[in-house]
Amino acid sequence: MAHRHPDPADPTAGSTVPAEVLADYLRAQATEFLRALRLHRESGGTGNGARKSADAAHALRRSARRISGSLHTFRPLLEESWAEELRPELAWLSGTLAREHAHRACLERLLRALHRLSPRPADSGDADRDGLTVGAAKAAALLDRRLSLARSRAHSTALRALDSSRFHAMADKVAVLAGDVPLAPTAAAADLTPLAAAAEERLRAAVAALPLVTAGSPYNAEGLVHGLSPDPSPHPQDTPWHQVRLLLRLHRYAREVVHGPDASADPRLLTAGRALDRHRDASKAAAAAAAAARTPRIAPATAYALGVLHADQRHEVEAARFAFQQAWQKQTVDAD
Amino acid sequence: MAHRHPDPADPTAGSTVPAEVLADYLRAQATEFLRALRLHRESGGTGNGARKSADAAHALRRSARRISGSLHTFRPLLEESWAEELRPELAWLSGTLAREHAHRACLERLLRALHRLSPRPADSGDADRDGLTVGAAKAAALLDRRLSLARSRAHSTALRALDSSRFHAMADKVAVLAGDVPLAPTAAAADLTPLAAAAEERLRAAVAALPLVTAGSPYNAEGLVHGLSPDPSPHPQDTPWHQVRLLLRLHRYAREVVHGPDASADPRLLTAGRALDRHRDASKAAAAAAAAARTPRIAPATAYALGVLHADQRHEVEAARFAFQQAWQKQTVDAD
Repeated sequence: MAHRHPDPADPTAGSTVPAEVLADYLRAQATEFLRALRLHRESGGTGNGARKSADAAHALRRSARRISGSLHTFRPLLEESWAEELRPELAWLSGTLAREHAHRACLERLLRALHRLSPRPADSGDADRDGLTVGAAKAAALLDRRLSLARSRAHSTALRALDSSRFHAMADKVAVLAGDVPLAPTAAAADLTPLAAAAEERLRAAVAALPLVTAGSPYNAEGLVHGLSPDPSPHPQDTPWHQVRLLLRLHRYAREVVHGPDASADPRLLTAGRALDRHRDASKAAAAAAAAARTPRIAPATAYALGVLHADQRHEVEAARFAFQQAWQKQTVDAD
Repeated sequence: MAHRHPDPADPTAGSTVPAEVLADYLRAQATEFLRALRLHRESGGTGNGARKSADAAHALRRSARRISGSLHTFRPLLEESWAEELRPELAWLSGTLAREHAHRACLERLLRALHRLSPRPADSGDADRDGLTVGAAKAAALLDRRLSLARSRAHSTALRALDSSRFHAMADKVAVLAGDVPLAPTAAAADLTPLAAAAEERLRAAVAALPLVTAGSPYNAEGLVHGLSPDPSPHPQDTPWHQVRLLLRLHRYAREVVHGPDASADPRLLTAGRALDRHRDASKAAAAAAAAARTPRIAPATAYALGVLHADQRHEVEAARFAFQQAWQKQTVDAD
């Protein structure tokens, strides 16, 4: 049964949203999860099936994230031990499935950057015989080797996970959810609105703690600070931005639950979210370039190209923060 | 004898500026040149004298550029063959003197950037024993070696130039200029204003040809396009910006002649000019990092640090273009 969603454009309308709206949402996402799982099993994973398999994995992650996020935001309305058991399992699955995709996307991003940074063939003459352009080609080959290996390991891990008893136990739980959502005894009289508002408040507080004044001043050179740090892992300065990315997602899902699927497609939220996705991707790609540069016995030209690439991606990090600041500012101004 | 300058804030006032104003200006700059030359000879060039010698060289370049620029802008008012003989000699001198300073400034800029990009000692623990931070240190040592050598060569060349018969012939001409400026026969009835306006128009036309829309959109990634080009020389995309820098200087000097020394200190022109100086400096520093990376048998960690440094300086190039666009736009808006 479908329950009515209040209009997101009119916050005074339907200010009480019953727990049944959450139950509808969880049922729908669980059904979507089971459909994606069936598609994934049918796809086989080779040839044309590889594409279908990737699409199905994407759909699985999508619904797993939404179920998990809703269990978190609306925790007081759900049967406690059940929600606390299911959530980490969903996080484990979507994390496992995400890894293969992330390695592929990272490699694509870095190869695209290497092409962007290299002179066009028309400009370079026979420059492809030159040290530094050979450097770019060698860097591409090294990154391809490293990230393809990581991706194929992640693929095997994902396949093993989907065949594990751990996964089957989780899928059984989701199947139950598709029929009957275990609500807390108090849920009948509850209202979703304050819980969704609390998710939004957590997001706003985290955004308020970001260095948005710096981020809004272009070319502030913050992205590359410590660019020559010996630690190739993502910079600690990125962490609060990654955290905001997760909180923005939880806020979007909460809106989806309370106001219906269109609320999550709010272009301002999508723009801000895309900026944070780009921030995360560039941060990881910069770290991958730095890690590749530590491969023993690489040629200086390869290392040079990886250095340029690392700095380029750290500037992408900075550019993404600027884009987020612009989107967020616009959102705040529009909302006032 | 001092002639009155029209008020730069009131373009309708004193719209005719006689050639004698130019003669006064050239006499003053020639006197300044001779004073700087005397200081340079007295400084000796070692110990405390090294600082005085550098200051004197700076003052020599300063007046040589102003005389040369004025000979160019107000050419029709000057005795033709005399001006055409003196100008290339002044350009030769200021170019020769500038080189030593440029190598020193380039090294300082790159070392500053390496420090900015390295983790602070408090953050790094014993990281200075690590590959990449060693890389930054090795890159610093390599750049120091290369640019100090280039600087000391430029220093010897400058000393030889100041002792050459070519220089003495030029200094004699400047000494004549300090007493009597050879004006063209038609100069008595001439007006400086249209010639100064033509210099401004050449600047405006060159600025109009710059990709200012792109430059005004932050993080456009234009600075690093072809960042992995095998050619370590400054990028061809920088050339029109360098050209605008020279035209802006000629415009400033022409304003100085027509409106007096304060006109050249217009903060908007100074801001725009400083952005173009930064553009030139970062462009040269990026090229120096790329050239150093081609040193045979360097360690991969050194090459990596030089790659990061190159990209950092190319982003400085992009940032400087943005700063120029902002200053120029402000100038245009304010002037309307």
